[in-house]
Amino acid sequence: MAIQFAERMQNLRASDIRELLKLTQKAGIISFAGGLPAPEFFPVHEMAALAVELMEKEGREALQYSTTEGCTKLRRIIAARMNKVYNTRVDVDNILITSGSQQGLDFSGKIFFDPGDVVLCESPTYLGAINAFRAYQPRFVEVETDAEGMVIAKLEQALAREPRAKFIYVIPDFQNPTGRTWSHERRLAFMDLVNRHQIPVVEDNPYGELRFEGTSQPSLKSLDTKGLVIFLGTFSKIFCPGLRIGWLAADQPIYEKYVLVKQGADLQTATLSQKQVLAYMEHYDIDENIARIRDNYRKRRDAMVEAIELEFPPEVMITRPEGGLFLWATLPAEINTRDLLVACLQENVAFVPGGSFFPNGGNENTMRLNYSNMPEDKIREGIKRMGVAIRAFMARTADLREEVAATER
Amino acid sequence: MAIQFAERMQNLRASDIRELLKLTQKAGIISFAGGLPAPEFFPVHEMAALAVELMEKEGREALQYSTTEGCTKLRRIIAARMNKVYNTRVDVDNILITSGSQQGLDFSGKIFFDPGDVVLCESPTYLGAINAFRAYQPRFVEVETDAEGMVIAKLEQALAREPRAKFIYVIPDFQNPTGRTWSHERRLAFMDLVNRHQIPVVEDNPYGELRFEGTSQPSLKSLDTKGLVIFLGTFSKIFCPGLRIGWLAADQPIYEKYVLVKQGADLQTATLSQKQVLAYMEHYDIDENIARIRDNYRKRRDAMVEAIELEFPPEVMITRPEGGLFLWATLPAEINTRDLLVACLQENVAFVPGGSFFPNGGNENTMRLNYSNMPEDKIREGIKRMGVAIRAFMARTADLREEVAATER
Repeated sequence: MAIQFAERMQNLRASDIRELLKLTQKAGIISFAGGLPAPEFFPVHEMAALAVELMEKEGREALQYSTTEGCTKLRRIIAARMNKVYNTRVDVDNILITSGSQQGLDFSGKIFFDPGDVVLCESPTYLGAINAFRAYQPRFVEVETDAEGMVIAKLEQALAREPRAKFIYVIPDFQNPTGRTWSHERRLAFMDLVNRHQIPVVEDNPYGELRFEGTSQPSLKSLDTKGLVIFLGTFSKIFCPGLRIGWLAADQPIYEKYVLVKQGADLQTATLSQKQVLAYMEHYDIDENIARIRDNYRKRRDAMVEAIELEFPPEVMITRPEGGLFLWATLPAEINTRDLLVACLQENVAFVPGGSFFPNGGNENTMRLNYSNMPEDKIREGIKRMGVAIRAFMARTADLREEVAATER
Repeated sequence: MAIQFAERMQNLRASDIRELLKLTQKAGIISFAGGLPAPEFFPVHEMAALAVELMEKEGREALQYSTTEGCTKLRRIIAARMNKVYNTRVDVDNILITSGSQQGLDFSGKIFFDPGDVVLCESPTYLGAINAFRAYQPRFVEVETDAEGMVIAKLEQALAREPRAKFIYVIPDFQNPTGRTWSHERRLAFMDLVNRHQIPVVEDNPYGELRFEGTSQPSLKSLDTKGLVIFLGTFSKIFCPGLRIGWLAADQPIYEKYVLVKQGADLQTATLSQKQVLAYMEHYDIDENIARIRDNYRKRRDAMVEAIELEFPPEVMITRPEGGLFLWATLPAEINTRDLLVACLQENVAFVPGGSFFPNGGNENTMRLNYSNMPEDKIREGIKRMGVAIRAFMARTADLREEVAATER
């Protein structure tokens, strides 16, 4: 005998982003690579005060085991807040506390996929979801996605072609990686198709409250009349990620499956973390905090878009997100952004090559840029450095093309 | 189409213990059912003081994302502590922080099992491990276990018979549910067999430091010369469970698989929880706290064993654990402890029927009793109530037998 791992382990590779984050931790680097929120807005002083009160008032309960579903009061606040912000009709019994919304992704794969089953997703889609799902050996079917969302005709074709489709995974608001938001019409058409096909939807919504401009669009969960939408939420981007408090909202019989899986996976999310978030929500106005984050990210997005217009060659196309943390750039087809990254790292600036966000590969001429974690002057400086690297890279690629052409003559 | 779950979901059922815990939360009940540590020993005041200092000194870092592997300083302290307490030779690169050791169990299933693979385990074994593993559809092969541990001849036969055995799962110290500890000789013979077969071992060790009497036995990890043992540890029983901080210690190439799986499952364990445990370890003497817990649990065990000798009929056999949280009782074969539990709940006393701890069923005449979470007077009162219920139950069963015999005449 020898050590033998499960088949799924052949599909799992280290995440580019996480490995990159290690490289970009060196001092002096300007990183657009991570997806880190701005720590300036973490309520550090409030958390210190709350911690003392929490320990004095209910320290033993806060440090003890609690239920798999999560703290009832916190679940109730989340349900009420979802109904207010996202116009849903959920209650406490629909809410499960998870260890970040990443855990909701993992559980979704676990609950729905046998090897060879199909997940329909946007193209591109969130790398963390690709990694989470891959452990359950599904086949990824990327559905063409334009500026308004998934192309409905393409989705309909995919549904007809893929009887093993188990759910559709989407990020309709300020998508990671593109920053795009689905239009109202597209959401209605999507839910209409979903209802006709009775296929579950995982609606991943970490950024929905971070809208800088434009009109809020209804969440898919608010349009869900048949209990098909599983909504994943998180405090990571509107409060702080270091507590790892996320949640999901789902209807029966789907909800109970998540609870069962949560029980086996880690029994429960940390009691203390849950009570810390609850105490913050009870004592402070999280909307004020969100407003501050929003204002700031808008400025950072403006700085990045303006700098790109100034510094990047005109061949580079970008999205102009109305909210969230990321924008997306598409370079001329012959530019491989993995190679470009190596050049950029030499200039002490980093991003994530876009190819990672396509589960079936390709599209190596794209990249994701994060603007939430760097102040405006750094953003301008970093984009400037990238502009130089991109121009040099394009010139070199053009030279190379001429050389090849010369050799072939 | 309709909503279709993965095949694995057919194997998953709500845990008896968790459902029971809900029943036993009503006031006035004396519960020997849970596995809760005594909250009197949670360092509540220390945690309040530390929280303030932590927020002031490094609040932003504590609330931000961090690495998948976990906080380096905490991993270093854990490695050093393991080497001291368990005589291992691990270092920081062998340690992965998990969300409780339950998560280490889930990951073990994920990394090793394809459907139909085999896990070899003690008989009985920990219910939470059964639930975690079941999600990956292994076959459970229970290996006969006596007062000294797994019976080596039986393990050898099982290994020969089961080519799809992926790992052996054991709790050698103060086992959950039996409270038993493996002898030194048995550990040596076990590791000898393991080395010859090159089969990985998951050594689950949540209670090892809670020894009241007798001689400490070497951890399996300390006897591991081939990098086959995956050690699961936790702060839940020596500090507090509400932070959900556990860890695993493993060698390459196994270690990197756990890191990959952790990344997809929840990115990382809560930064703040990790820093809270680290701060406690740096500022206070956890060994003092453990000594207090130990003294107290010894008294509670004494109270339970003495009360059982006084109150239970002599037909009931029990283990006398040298440490940990649980003891195990075996009743006459005709008593079904699930039925007995219903009778006991009427008397406001609860335990866990032992059948749940046998993955392949049977052994319904056994039960697990927890003594860590009730003061001594409650233990005496609860055991007294159970004694009455057991005697009544045995009398009724005897009557029933006579009636059946009479009918058959």
